[in-house]
Amino acid sequence: MLKIGIIGLGRIGKVHMTSICTRIPEAKIIIAADPFLNDEMIDFAKEFGIENLTKDYKEVLNNKEVDAVLICSSTDTHADISAEAIELGKHVFCEKPVDHSIAKINKVKEALEENPVKFQVGFNRRYDHNFAAIRKAVLDGKVGDVHVTKITSRDPNPPSAEYAAVSGGMLLDMTIHDFDMVRFLTGAEPVSIYVEPAVLVDKAIGEAGDIDTAIITIKMSDGSIAMIDNSRKAIYGYDQRAEVFGSGGMVASKNDSESTVVISDENGVVGEKPLYFFLERYMDSFTLEVKEFIDAVINDKEIKTGIDAGLKSIEMALAGNISIKEKRVVEISEVQK
Amino acid sequence: MLKIGIIGLGRIGKVHMTSICTRIPEAKIIIAADPFLNDEMIDFAKEFGIENLTKDYKEVLNNKEVDAVLICSSTDTHADISAEAIELGKHVFCEKPVDHSIAKINKVKEALEENPVKFQVGFNRRYDHNFAAIRKAVLDGKVGDVHVTKITSRDPNPPSAEYAAVSGGMLLDMTIHDFDMVRFLTGAEPVSIYVEPAVLVDKAIGEAGDIDTAIITIKMSDGSIAMIDNSRKAIYGYDQRAEVFGSGGMVASKNDSESTVVISDENGVVGEKPLYFFLERYMDSFTLEVKEFIDAVINDKEIKTGIDAGLKSIEMALAGNISIKEKRVVEISEVQK
Amino acid sequence: MLKIGIIGLGRIGKVHMTSICTRIPEAKIIIAADPFLNDEMIDFAKEFGIENLTKDYKEVLNNKEVDAVLICSSTDTHADISAEAIELGKHVFCEKPVDHSIAKINKVKEALEENPVKFQVGFNRRYDHNFAAIRKAVLDGKVGDVHVTKITSRDPNPPSAEYAAVSGGMLLDMTIHDFDMVRFLTGAEPVSIYVEPAVLVDKAIGEAGDIDTAIITIKMSDGSIAMIDNSRKAIYGYDQRAEVFGSGGMVASKNDSESTVVISDENGVVGEKPLYFFLERYMDSFTLEVKEFIDAVINDKEIKTGIDAGLKSIEMALAGNISIKEKRVVEISEVQK
Amino acid sequence: MLKIGIIGLGRIGKVHMTSICTRIPEAKIIIAADPFLNDEMIDFAKEFGIENLTKDYKEVLNNKEVDAVLICSSTDTHADISAEAIELGKHVFCEKPVDHSIAKINKVKEALEENPVKFQVGFNRRYDHNFAAIRKAVLDGKVGDVHVTKITSRDPNPPSAEYAAVSGGMLLDMTIHDFDMVRFLTGAEPVSIYVEPAVLVDKAIGEAGDIDTAIITIKMSDGSIAMIDNSRKAIYGYDQRAEVFGSGGMVASKNDSESTVVISDENGVVGEKPLYFFLERYMDSFTLEVKEFIDAVINDKEIKTGIDAGLKSIEMALAGNISIKEKRVVEISEVQK
Repeated sequence: MLKIGIIGLGRIGKVHMTSICTRIPEAKIIIAADPFLNDEMIDFAKEFGIENLTKDYKEVLNNKEVDAVLICSSTDTHADISAEAIELGKHVFCEKPVDHSIAKINKVKEALEENPVKFQVGFNRRYDHNFAAIRKAVLDGKVGDVHVTKITSRDPNPPSAEYAAVSGGMLLDMTIHDFDMVRFLTGAEPVSIYVEPAVLVDKAIGEAGDIDTAIITIKMSDGSIAMIDNSRKAIYGYDQRAEVFGSGGMVASKNDSESTVVISDENGVVGEKPLYFFLERYMDSFTLEVKEFIDAVINDKEIKTGIDAGLKSIEMALAGNISIKEKRVVEISEVQK
Repeated sequence: MLKIGIIGLGRIGKVHMTSICTRIPEAKIIIAADPFLNDEMIDFAKEFGIENLTKDYKEVLNNKEVDAVLICSSTDTHADISAEAIELGKHVFCEKPVDHSIAKINKVKEALEENPVKFQVGFNRRYDHNFAAIRKAVLDGKVGDVHVTKITSRDPNPPSAEYAAVSGGMLLDMTIHDFDMVRFLTGAEPVSIYVEPAVLVDKAIGEAGDIDTAIITIKMSDGSIAMIDNSRKAIYGYDQRAEVFGSGGMVASKNDSESTVVISDENGVVGEKPLYFFLERYMDSFTLEVKEFIDAVINDKEIKTGIDAGLKSIEMALAGNISIKEKRVVEISEVQK
Repeated sequence: MLKIGIIGLGRIGKVHMTSICTRIPEAKIIIAADPFLNDEMIDFAKEFGIENLTKDYKEVLNNKEVDAVLICSSTDTHADISAEAIELGKHVFCEKPVDHSIAKINKVKEALEENPVKFQVGFNRRYDHNFAAIRKAVLDGKVGDVHVTKITSRDPNPPSAEYAAVSGGMLLDMTIHDFDMVRFLTGAEPVSIYVEPAVLVDKAIGEAGDIDTAIITIKMSDGSIAMIDNSRKAIYGYDQRAEVFGSGGMVASKNDSESTVVISDENGVVGEKPLYFFLERYMDSFTLEVKEFIDAVINDKEIKTGIDAGLKSIEMALAGNISIKEKRVVEISEVQK
Repeated sequence: MLKIGIIGLGRIGKVHMTSICTRIPEAKIIIAADPFLNDEMIDFAKEFGIENLTKDYKEVLNNKEVDAVLICSSTDTHADISAEAIELGKHVFCEKPVDHSIAKINKVKEALEENPVKFQVGFNRRYDHNFAAIRKAVLDGKVGDVHVTKITSRDPNPPSAEYAAVSGGMLLDMTIHDFDMVRFLTGAEPVSIYVEPAVLVDKAIGEAGDIDTAIITIKMSDGSIAMIDNSRKAIYGYDQRAEVFGSGGMVASKNDSESTVVISDENGVVGEKPLYFFLERYMDSFTLEVKEFIDAVINDKEIKTGIDAGLKSIEMALAGNISIKEKRVVEISEVQK
């Protein structure tokens, strides 16, 4: 029975707590921390019989019984807490992004070189049934050599302009998942990136210095081309599709919906909208990623979504931000020093 | 160049005239007849350069140059004109149904035994791209042994109660196509039939002694079961689907629509309704059936949709009518004397 | 916190145990019984912290703390244990079928009249996302008046002939779910039934006196017609679809699959097969039905899938069996005495 | 009855001849020319009763009876013959592209300013049922303000490297249709373009100085972004899809196939591949574009696909070629002098 500590009891911390307590019998949460610990969090944890709660994440790290920690705190603390945990020999599951700074991610990488514990980044979409099935088809050779990878990723509603202003920008906040997906689906590395940005959803987002729409083109190390099509607002809901095309064929996924039901009447043949947002759409993937992490720790397996996934996605986002600013193609190597 | 005479210049006569003149270069219409010949018909024929028009169908039959006739006159005249044409050695394409009376169809059959000209019945749906593809899949062994055949056939709008009263009833007027389709798709013969009838669309149709809704079950000679699901009114349009299920798999067709376009908005994911009615849905099949007939005449090929198709479909309809009346399963052999 | 006892720890008993322990925080299993209690069952229960296990179901019924029992024992014991539990004032969730004998089901009904506890029958498919969405559309008036209801229900693999011989026959063993579905989707009652049976999957099943294929037509109390299309073996997997057609439109569901992924290559455009069998396909529905039962007990709500669902489905099956034997339409009232 | 002359009797010349003779009764071909006139062309024309055939296109232009000419000769002759025809007052339907040189297209434009005859460019895909339905949805406001337009356009087989070497390159030879489609679907003009090119299908094409794969991003005058995804070889056939996304929703088309038939077996649920290539996929559009041209001439209507469509698509291609060469975003205005 693996003993887990959770740091951060916001939305995603609770998602992981629920997964582990109800669907992963191999692990047990023995302690949890949140700097803003409140009654609601305490009640939530108690439902699962978790009584050891604290405001100080160091109590989690210093708990001798804890084998592995899940870092679900605010983004700016991910890298530091990760490095600290690694140094204490704890296995770490860290929510994405590890950090917005390449230097800070590299510090975590260095810590891992010294203390080679298991370290996984929370790119949950890799564990989604649709994207996992695409990757499997690619690995099974169903598309032959990859030529073109296409990701459509549109949110149902934009963030506030205030949030946009402090989020690091759409590429770091939203597209980060799609950058990781491109690497996951192709198994190749990004070489250069071009972003065609636009502010079409909410002018205030533009005034806050961010964008809300983009077509992103990425040249990959295997010679293939990837593209990402992002919008902060799709009126029909969360649009999450991918397509990989190659010498042997094409594999593509559609959106998930609540049911397969279709209604035909005088207005047409009407199917359901996509599942509303990421909690509905990706719920199972949150469980599966933690399951894989716990399995890797218990059975000493290789981590598949490790620190490099955290690093490369940030490199892509930062190179993309230069592309937006300078209206040009940017080599990924430009941000790798 | 095959020389054709057309008898009957109503809707379907014009469809065939257009097909032959624009899409079948191997044949030429040299004469056409209609007892109610009017200016509109004359103008229509002139567009295609057909000037030899008459009110008397016998002029068509007696025209020495005519190789083949298309009989598109009113249903009650089909059998007599067919027999007459056959005796004169003309090849015959006869619109469905050949007749509502088994005795009269058998007369045509006897005429054919004496004068073995080519004789085809106008069951155009066999030539539809979807149904032909299902039949091809069955013949190619894709479903293995046929177990269950399902036909959905719903009209966009009911006929008037007046029409229903004189039409011979829904089974003879509408289901006749589906009866033929069951034989076509399975390659088997009907053994017994049970009809569950209902009047749900228009009470006046019921008062006129007819039905407007039915589920029909047919036991086939190969042991398989076929079912037909009919309605006189589908608010979303002409619903024409089929499914054949067997030991090796299932083959099924969907409806055709004007385009593949789908609109996603806050109301859902909306595709187009089916093509409105039979002229839109089956236009190509009208050309293809006549093409096949003309090819069979020119190249002395076997007719695939011959007099037996005309006979068996009527037997099924008449047995079905007994089933409705007597609320019981009826053997097809009961009407075959 | 509702206290639950489970009787029967076979496949379905374990499914319910898992649901309650991991996904229904409002209830707690305090005791479980199985006449063949073994180490594997004991280990399974221990994983969830359930230690009070017994071979004698009476210990469950007589446990004063138990509020409600889930009866998951063999079919022939359902009715007797149900009646006993009801008399002791326990709320009952009883797996389907309640019994194959109308007389015995009526005894349970009488017990309920004397002790009006909550009693739910385990027709889980009503709680499936697709069928629930169809029912919702019907209730929302999307199809207007119901005219035709169609259920396709095909298993991936036939039972052994030995099982078939003792199962009561396909209608009682398999179609029972579809009979309930017809009532659920339409909200109407069956009036008469006609079954067109066949043995096409496995001759041995026929020799054992059972059938493996059927088209079933049911006249409903609202004048509509329902049809069920059953096969014991669909080579492509578990085929579970429904369609309701009416004056205002049509609502239809498709099969569920593991993912939405489609592969296009030189062979065609290939989607996934349906989910393999009922545990995969209906897993969520097993949780939802028990959730609804527990909610009804705790909050004194009306049971939606009560004893009548158990009774009517058996009446349909028994009338259907007469139809098979006597090759005729059978009124449901013939078996209701 | 409009009198037409056709210049060029290659594949597309014959397509137009067939359309006019069989499906456009308002027009009549009275003369046709081809510099390589041969027996096969003569026989083809005779089938339609066209006897006035010549090797000299000037005979067509100088024929006093000719109202309109269809220019279907080799690309390098389009502009000169167009200008000549315009000067002689003939209405012109000119196959795409008008020319690869902006200067030469502008000469045609100048000729039109002096002699404002009807002039249409053969961008047939605008008349395809799917793309026309998308445009209609956009015009009907179904997507609100356009944000993102996506075109997938993949050929079933690459040209030979020899052809590629003289074709002007993929953008001028193949993408030209997609460039026009972007303008057609959005109703906006291109502002800048970025091409991410690749040679992944056939190395020899790369050695010949051309590309065979590309992702193209275009900034449009309405602020929206368009993207085109091209490949010279999709193993599953001709892939022709489009999607327009905006503030009010998304409209998207799928590929057409021979039938709607789907086969389910142990391998999956298999639909048909797309229609093989442009003659199959776009046949109707070739008729509809000529129909619209003839209608515009007869009824003096505005031409919708005029010289600007010819000009702008070439500007996009030429700017795209600079982008490929210089690996940078190129303003369309850079090529407009």
